[in-house]
Amino acid sequence: MKFSVTVTLKKDVLDPQGKVVQDTLQNLGMNNLKNIRQGKYFEIELNDTDQNKAEKKVDDMCKKLLANLIIEDYKVNKI
Amino acid sequence: MKFSVTVTLKKDVLDPQGKVVQDTLQNLGMNNLKNIRQGKYFEIELNDTDQNKAEKKVDDMCKKLLANLIIEDYKVNKI
Repeated sequence: MKFSVTVTLKKDVLDPQGKVVQDTLQNLGMNNLKNIRQGKYFEIELNDTDQNKAEKKVDDMCKKLLANLIIEDYKVNKI
Repeated sequence: MKFSVTVTLKKDVLDPQGKVVQDTLQNLGMNNLKNIRQGKYFEIELNDTDQNKAEKKVDDMCKKLLANLIIEDYKVNKI
């Protein structure tokens, strides 16, 4: 069973890394760029067969290690 | 117009960062973990209104800056 997890900074948290990417793209000649924010992405494969249990487990992983809930949000999707 | 971009290492490329995350989760007591791979995630907001043009532009950004096509794949989604 495979899940994707995206971890993004909360809306009000500054994202210097995304800002650098945005500036660089503008320097490369891209216009009409409104905003870029960068996050983390994980593909997690589990041996479990029970989807509910597996989802619960991935949620646990996010809370314990993958995301810092003070400044980050996370989203889990089955793929 | 808003797009999400995920950049992942190609299947055959080693992912030491993902391996560390996997080992750490196992040390935290998570079992049944088959595989974890880490990637990058971007949320890109454009002022364009023409979806085709905007998609083309995001594709261009991936090729020019966001992804290293030798070792990475990327996926663009409208959100």
